[in-house]
Amino acid sequence: MRIFGELQGLYQGASFRNRLELSQSGLHKPPQAGISGSQIEGADSIIVSGGYEDDEDYGDIIIYTGHGGRDLSSGKQVTNQELVRGNLALAESCKNGLPVRVIRGAHKKSNIAPEEGYRYDGLFRVEDYWKEKGVSGFIVWRFRLRKIDGELKKDSKILQEEQEEYDFNKKTKRIETRVQRIVRDTALSKKIKEKYKYTCQVCNTQIETSSGYYAEAAHIKPLGAPHNGPDSEDNLICLCPNHHVMFDYGGFSILENFDLIGLKGKLKIMNNHKINKDYLRYHFEHFYDEKNR
Amino acid sequence: MRIFGELQGLYQGASFRNRLELSQSGLHKPPQAGISGSQIEGADSIIVSGGYEDDEDYGDIIIYTGHGGRDLSSGKQVTNQELVRGNLALAESCKNGLPVRVIRGAHKKSNIAPEEGYRYDGLFRVEDYWKEKGVSGFIVWRFRLRKIDGELKKDSKILQEEQEEYDFNKKTKRIETRVQRIVRDTALSKKIKEKYKYTCQVCNTQIETSSGYYAEAAHIKPLGAPHNGPDSEDNLICLCPNHHVMFDYGGFSILENFDLIGLKGKLKIMNNHKINKDYLRYHFEHFYDEKNR
Repeated sequence: MRIFGELQGLYQGASFRNRLELSQSGLHKPPQAGISGSQIEGADSIIVSGGYEDDEDYGDIIIYTGHGGRDLSSGKQVTNQELVRGNLALAESCKNGLPVRVIRGAHKKSNIAPEEGYRYDGLFRVEDYWKEKGVSGFIVWRFRLRKIDGELKKDSKILQEEQEEYDFNKKTKRIETRVQRIVRDTALSKKIKEKYKYTCQVCNTQIETSSGYYAEAAHIKPLGAPHNGPDSEDNLICLCPNHHVMFDYGGFSILENFDLIGLKGKLKIMNNHKINKDYLRYHFEHFYDEKNR
Repeated sequence: MRIFGELQGLYQGASFRNRLELSQSGLHKPPQAGISGSQIEGADSIIVSGGYEDDEDYGDIIIYTGHGGRDLSSGKQVTNQELVRGNLALAESCKNGLPVRVIRGAHKKSNIAPEEGYRYDGLFRVEDYWKEKGVSGFIVWRFRLRKIDGELKKDSKILQEEQEEYDFNKKTKRIETRVQRIVRDTALSKKIKEKYKYTCQVCNTQIETSSGYYAEAAHIKPLGAPHNGPDSEDNLICLCPNHHVMFDYGGFSILENFDLIGLKGKLKIMNNHKINKDYLRYHFEHFYDEKNR
């Protein structure tokens, strides 16, 4: 089983003399590959060791270059990279919000890397992935990772840009901090999405991306106070983003016989997926508003 | 013009003797109403003064009760509230991620409220809205607000629950911090969404919620390093959440003649909306991946 997130007893700053020690710790199991993960499960850890000419390490933000297409002896890019294997695993972590353990390896050109061996530097989130022509002229896949709950270092180039934008906003107009929508994934989200093969239980849509399918797991009775719905399979459904927004904002609800209200049709449910009807009633009573129809 | 966010020269902690002084400051203009805003624009400020029996003030998290249905002399709820006027304005702020200025009024029962008059307590985000039977037995609309960049106070009841969950996770299994997707709104987002009447430029879908329509403004060349796309109208399109996810994760792109690639059809564009073709090319080159089709 691939373990995502922190490992018991292994704290940030933990050091390892070599890849074998690191592998045995469980923080990053593959003995050679820089990305640990699979297309199905996502990536659980990476090693940032400056082996790729295109990597950019700003401390709490890392622009990481995918694998493939590299001449092993020179480290130079000699063909295009493709969105396969480890690269696809990182894209999967991006779409599912999975935490990625970052281990830095010693590297002369970096003042962030350890002086020798390998060091575990905590959990990062893959914010974005894209491809571009690398310094070699060949296509590389790139991943922006951001430290989870990390404080950005003052000298980070990226922070500087953000700070400048902030200062500019402050001088010229009102500060406006706007986060429209945060989709939080939980331990069970992936399981429920896989059960439905990333198909929306309302409309059967399967959203396609460059790295496979995308769906969202929606809690029927919301997590967090004052609702305090549980993170359990009987409180989760698999929806496309459109129907997730509509569900959270009361555009439709689900009756106890699974008929939709506010939308036509019925919720599609697998035989091995039991939904708790108390949670359906909670959603109907608290989020659906008949008056506005 | 309604101003969202901070007002120049008015800092957190600013105090006002009465509603007239507060109104003249511009922080909260209505002389009597607790919610300042409109259904079209959203709510820019609220007053938390304990006037509603159902309000719950935890400091950096507030469970705020909407307006309406209240007996003015006793403050008791005497009829159901509806999702109209100020309540609809707060729902609009929720869906668009608008910052809401919170002003606390003196209230004997609260140790968070000022001792007298009114105090500006910073920007909050409306995280969620729903209805429930209030303590009176009548329906009230409720809004959970969270302080933007605020540190949660240690004695917050809600934080305690979150802390307990965190401790539980730590004891029993791996810590997993998962944020699947953050949709950030910008100054121009609302303008572009209104231009298209909240209709997706790819599929014409208009997402319905209990408080009106919902759409997302997508940056063609992404904001932030290393892309550094601008927040300008010629870099924005109006999409439904499904096509926003697909666009960000390379499921489709847009050619310079506005034909879609990866999807059938053409981007619908209003005459008064000029899109910069350099940004389209950037998206196509960096996010669309033909190999995976």
